[in-house]
Amino acid sequence: MRRPADHRYARRSDSKLEPPCGILQLGRMRSVSSVGAMQRLAKSWRRRGVPIGFVPTMGYLHDGHLSLVREARRLVGRQGKVVLSIYVNPTQFGPKEDFRRYPRDLPRDLALCREAGVDVVFCPTDAELYPEGASTWVVEEALSQGLEGQSRPGHFRGVTTVVAKLFHLVLPDVAVFGAKDYQQAAVVRRMVRDLHFPVRIRVAPTRREPDGLAMSSRNRYLAGDLRRQALVVVQAIRVAQAQVRHGAGAAAGTLRRQLERVIARAPDARVDYIAFFDPETLAPLRRVQRGAHLALAVSVGKTRLIDNARL
Amino acid sequence: MRRPADHRYARRSDSKLEPPCGILQLGRMRSVSSVGAMQRLAKSWRRRGVPIGFVPTMGYLHDGHLSLVREARRLVGRQGKVVLSIYVNPTQFGPKEDFRRYPRDLPRDLALCREAGVDVVFCPTDAELYPEGASTWVVEEALSQGLEGQSRPGHFRGVTTVVAKLFHLVLPDVAVFGAKDYQQAAVVRRMVRDLHFPVRIRVAPTRREPDGLAMSSRNRYLAGDLRRQALVVVQAIRVAQAQVRHGAGAAAGTLRRQLERVIARAPDARVDYIAFFDPETLAPLRRVQRGAHLALAVSVGKTRLIDNARL
Repeated sequence: MRRPADHRYARRSDSKLEPPCGILQLGRMRSVSSVGAMQRLAKSWRRRGVPIGFVPTMGYLHDGHLSLVREARRLVGRQGKVVLSIYVNPTQFGPKEDFRRYPRDLPRDLALCREAGVDVVFCPTDAELYPEGASTWVVEEALSQGLEGQSRPGHFRGVTTVVAKLFHLVLPDVAVFGAKDYQQAAVVRRMVRDLHFPVRIRVAPTRREPDGLAMSSRNRYLAGDLRRQALVVVQAIRVAQAQVRHGAGAAAGTLRRQLERVIARAPDARVDYIAFFDPETLAPLRRVQRGAHLALAVSVGKTRLIDNARL
Repeated sequence: MRRPADHRYARRSDSKLEPPCGILQLGRMRSVSSVGAMQRLAKSWRRRGVPIGFVPTMGYLHDGHLSLVREARRLVGRQGKVVLSIYVNPTQFGPKEDFRRYPRDLPRDLALCREAGVDVVFCPTDAELYPEGASTWVVEEALSQGLEGQSRPGHFRGVTTVVAKLFHLVLPDVAVFGAKDYQQAAVVRRMVRDLHFPVRIRVAPTRREPDGLAMSSRNRYLAGDLRRQALVVVQAIRVAQAQVRHGAGAAAGTLRRQLERVIARAPDARVDYIAFFDPETLAPLRRVQRGAHLALAVSVGKTRLIDNARL
């Protein structure tokens, strides 16, 4: 029997009917879901000396994400490539968290990415990113202990593991993270330093709504009055900044109680933590002075919000 | 005051007196200790499309290591680069193990590498490989549980962590490991698969002394009569192979007791484990048949030896 030798060639050449597995061309932008295709693409750029900028996200993009894309573009230049990944990583959610209802809208995200000049949107599948029987984890055991790590056990193990996987697939020269997830950025920086990843980490400032609320994909959960109540988070930050900037500093306990009272103004808000810490080591501070960092996590209704600021 | 603008240039040009920090030229081979210099070198090869083959070792090289170098050379070709690392990794030794007395002889190793055609010997320092306050680990939680993992708690956490660091510094296309450390090779393969390292893993066969003893840097601990006693390890493997090849297989317990009797012939030998398992999953087997894998760890005097074979 004759083997149909040119069958594969015929399929490959007719790219409109049969695009290469896991790649979709959208004008000048590509959407890639296959991990193998992503890594091959990244390697081909590397061989040609093309710098790669990377923005890892969980999708449902807002202007905070797009500001990271702009920063990545600035860093790699017009000749460079900007990759944005969209992946709602199951391993960084706790069993009672919002993994299933986390907002998703891929068509909208792709349109936003195309407008923003992203070169490749990488949206891997669970099955490929976590192969059958996956048993390897990256763990950071110091900076990830407090704050979010304490409230969300296992969260940062999920984050460091997925970021390591994504770095190996996208092979970026520089990766851009948002300052809103302050501890996440610190943990990723530490991971990169400790494991000697050949990647530079850039942290870009938090983008805020006109009324000051930090942009977040989870803000869409905040219907009606809850959206207004959520502003106590920003008000608490402003109170802390005013206290520290115009005085000799304050005892952490005293300042914390003051901020708790600000947050209590919203009937549906519940403080998870209010923490003052050293911006580098994340070590808790007893006395809060200029340059200290504040992070807080507050649930408003069923929606958990986080924010942070340098004081 | 005038800044001595060309001071740095003058230092760099006079390479015999002031070689670049962390790099030593030895004929056509280089020895690199700085992690930054190693990564820059690897990146420059990558940009030029030069394939990189990597052999990680703890030094005190023997022909087993050199066979890995030959395999790496075969895989990357004459245009490629072969990097051999020498690093006695403290984190893979238990507190009561032989970290301090592990044999070291860098001048001899460098001479052997030069003869073998290694391009770069990478010998990083503890302080650089594990920066102050290093808190990030790579852990494999399935294949690393039994065998060596059970006898040496924390061993594989040290192995996976240091291999991840070395991969990020050497940026190899292919890394070659020895089959003598069978479980180590399986754990590293799993790590590479799970974390999507852009590295191919090759496992090369165990090299043996003329009398059959697997080559190991630790063999040098075996003085006089202990060296002869150590052969019970090889004899046990041969007995197991004969049993399985000429029969319908055997119950694991029965075969284990038989091998224990072989090892008991050496008065200073003490079995740590004798294990029969599936060569892919490392899952223990109750019934041992052709294709099963045998691994054993035996202390001869104070020296712990491991060996393994397909039956």
